[in-house]
Amino acid sequence: MSTAPDNAVRAYIDVHRAAFLADLAEWLRIPSVSADPANAADVRRSAEWLVAKLKETGFPTAEIWETGAGNGAPAVFAEWPSGEEDAPTVLVYGHHDVQPAAREDGWHTDPFEPTTIDGRLYARGAADDKGQVFFHTLGVRAHLAATGRTAPAVNLKLIVEGEEESGSPNFPALIAAHADRLACDAVIVSDTGMWSEDTPTVCTGMRGLAECQIDLYGPDQDIHSGSFGGAVPNPATEAARLAAALHDEDRRVTIPGFYDGVVELTDQERELIAELPFDEKRWLRAAHSHGTLGEAGYSTLERVWARPTAEVNGIGGGYQGPGGKTIVPSSARLKLSFRLVAGQDADRVQESVRDWVAARLPEGGGIRHEITFTGSTRPCLTPLDHPALQSVVRAMTKAFGQKIRFTREGGSGPAADLQDVLGAPVLFLGISVPSDGWHAPNEKVELDLLMKGVETAAHLWGDLAATARTGAGA
Amino acid sequence: MSTAPDNAVRAYIDVHRAAFLADLAEWLRIPSVSADPANAADVRRSAEWLVAKLKETGFPTAEIWETGAGNGAPAVFAEWPSGEEDAPTVLVYGHHDVQPAAREDGWHTDPFEPTTIDGRLYARGAADDKGQVFFHTLGVRAHLAATGRTAPAVNLKLIVEGEEESGSPNFPALIAAHADRLACDAVIVSDTGMWSEDTPTVCTGMRGLAECQIDLYGPDQDIHSGSFGGAVPNPATEAARLAAALHDEDRRVTIPGFYDGVVELTDQERELIAELPFDEKRWLRAAHSHGTLGEAGYSTLERVWARPTAEVNGIGGGYQGPGGKTIVPSSARLKLSFRLVAGQDADRVQESVRDWVAARLPEGGGIRHEITFTGSTRPCLTPLDHPALQSVVRAMTKAFGQKIRFTREGGSGPAADLQDVLGAPVLFLGISVPSDGWHAPNEKVELDLLMKGVETAAHLWGDLAATARTGAGA
Repeated sequence: MSTAPDNAVRAYIDVHRAAFLADLAEWLRIPSVSADPANAADVRRSAEWLVAKLKETGFPTAEIWETGAGNGAPAVFAEWPSGEEDAPTVLVYGHHDVQPAAREDGWHTDPFEPTTIDGRLYARGAADDKGQVFFHTLGVRAHLAATGRTAPAVNLKLIVEGEEESGSPNFPALIAAHADRLACDAVIVSDTGMWSEDTPTVCTGMRGLAECQIDLYGPDQDIHSGSFGGAVPNPATEAARLAAALHDEDRRVTIPGFYDGVVELTDQERELIAELPFDEKRWLRAAHSHGTLGEAGYSTLERVWARPTAEVNGIGGGYQGPGGKTIVPSSARLKLSFRLVAGQDADRVQESVRDWVAARLPEGGGIRHEITFTGSTRPCLTPLDHPALQSVVRAMTKAFGQKIRFTREGGSGPAADLQDVLGAPVLFLGISVPSDGWHAPNEKVELDLLMKGVETAAHLWGDLAATARTGAGA
Repeated sequence: MSTAPDNAVRAYIDVHRAAFLADLAEWLRIPSVSADPANAADVRRSAEWLVAKLKETGFPTAEIWETGAGNGAPAVFAEWPSGEEDAPTVLVYGHHDVQPAAREDGWHTDPFEPTTIDGRLYARGAADDKGQVFFHTLGVRAHLAATGRTAPAVNLKLIVEGEEESGSPNFPALIAAHADRLACDAVIVSDTGMWSEDTPTVCTGMRGLAECQIDLYGPDQDIHSGSFGGAVPNPATEAARLAAALHDEDRRVTIPGFYDGVVELTDQERELIAELPFDEKRWLRAAHSHGTLGEAGYSTLERVWARPTAEVNGIGGGYQGPGGKTIVPSSARLKLSFRLVAGQDADRVQESVRDWVAARLPEGGGIRHEITFTGSTRPCLTPLDHPALQSVVRAMTKAFGQKIRFTREGGSGPAADLQDVLGAPVLFLGISVPSDGWHAPNEKVELDLLMKGVETAAHLWGDLAATARTGAGA
């Protein structure tokens, strides 16, 4: 079998670590923010950079895939055939776009000038997701070096999209269009995290996501709150009433139909979750929060892993400058996102939200509204006893030298679309930890864990190939 | 008696109209925005300009009064003694500061470059309040010219403050400190409006005002809504829940104690209001609104004139840029204002709001809040049968040649403070109309009405002097 000896993998990684980190830093300098049209050229530059780097790594095929009829952000596809006829095919998923970031949001360093401090690499995208995509480049080289192979033990494919942070609006169409070239026996998603630095885990599911913006229009312009206030509808008040009505006093989402189909946690799942070494104080530190609050009847972990939510990502209307301005504002807007769990359908949730908004606004014509959904992501869940999942657990065990436990991910990724379109199981391989600060200022990746990611990837392809042939791992 | 013949007044005004409007335009070019510290020098320049112009008009005394121990905006005081021993003393009140204005808010012309189109003068402050302060300068000159006097028939005083648009935080202290120099038999407030171009009216009361900003703090930074959303409190949600809870389904304010002491409308007052030629469509046009909404059980006019309200002037939190950003925001803020009516006490309202906010935020320490009140203005009401009010009605009748009706003003001014401190009745003399767009883009004043204001002022001093001597008007 072609799993690599531990020492050979480690030796190879040690030699190439510095060059690998220098390359990663170069990529992180490209501000590939997909949410802001002003960064479109940067997103393209990021894709082109990755194509060149994958070719340098040895992938015979590495190319840009346009999305959304050329209006979407470019994705990157790469392929490295095993050369063995019965080798399984594995597709690695990640994304090269990043969340917005600006120094004045509270960053201690320039978010697009990677900085290493105490074994941590600070940069937007360090953990989410460039770092976790990039560990596969050194991983596959270490796999080859340690096993003496010239091509991977599996037919290795990569799909790295450029719009994940914008809800992957064009990803379902992209994978549908290229389903033949993406065909695989398993998907490895490298866009998730682990429990903590001390407790390595493998993730078995992600929440889905639906996002919308609701624009409310009242008077045609801002008007005097003394002359008219109290007698005309105020769009800022109506925006607030919508946002406030999202949750009842038990912090359950009130939108009719929202919970339809939700797969409830089993007693066994609740026990597994309860067994994890959860430290609320530590979790709150990672959350930079000072208290917990959520759906009544569920623990914090259950709330973020297995329960659907409604969140106000942004609200705005009226005067927000210094001092006061006694107006009834002409407009207001809400940015909402909904995390979805297995059993929920994003399209049906969108319809429920539309109906709910329309029904809640005051009658009489004083408030006009527009609601815009910006893509959606399906939830997904992998069975705990799946053979490929067991391969991931073994590869991680070798790299970490510790028992690997199971978690879920509160965040969202297009994993479920891959599962649906390609008909392949989805596994998760991520080394990020909660303190990495995804979407927040001072995002970082732990360099030690990043190298464990490299090592896991180096072991994984051999184990998956062996498992596919024998039905059992190394 | 010294009331002026109509023709002489009109002749004098016709000759001096052009120079008067040129002077007013010069004043309107000064962007005396009191809410923005960046405009502090402009507010001072506005005060200095007015002092020079009042001296040029003939006031023997015109000077700047510093406020707030030098940290407030400068007010202007001027005095022109009658020279007759038994002349009554009248204090005219106005303000020289203006609301913020920027071209991109929807102005068709530069808000600080006065532009005359079709008999309307467009500029920030044209109606609120520089235009209405300034008509007194030509008014008093016309009074002298038409009566052959060298000093006004009344001891004429002016107080023109510089912080009205910021809630007059230092005005009560200023008038208390200078109560001896401001002493008067009546206050004429020129900072209100009339029913319409066709229906001249005199205002008998204004609502008071309390304003606050509520800052809510959740996580120490924006955090990932997937990793943490649904399990930590969201300050944008809590800001929305506060704003939404301000009103019940009948749009009554829910804050306990808010309505304490409110003087309810009498049946007679409701009848007088109902007799006015109220056209809802026209009112909505002036409001730039597309529907009415307010406290159940009251008409639109009752809602804006005689009922206290709570208004969201601004709300903000989280991501408001293009696209989406799936965060739980670290903070959010609300700017609220409360219009108060006779019988309400601003200090008690502030306490009620403080208590209400503190009681409504979620327990558990996840949300910290700060509430800042920025000044307050007392409500006031003048008895319909007051002799000085009858003088105003007569002067207006001469100027307009029409029956003068009664209104109230939904807006707020520091009139009640003057009434309380100086022990003098407060009358209102304003020529602005609802379409003038106070606090809105494209604020303007109707030049014909502005000149009627000049004419009314020219008649008023003689009538007030005569009324004071005889107890009856001209």
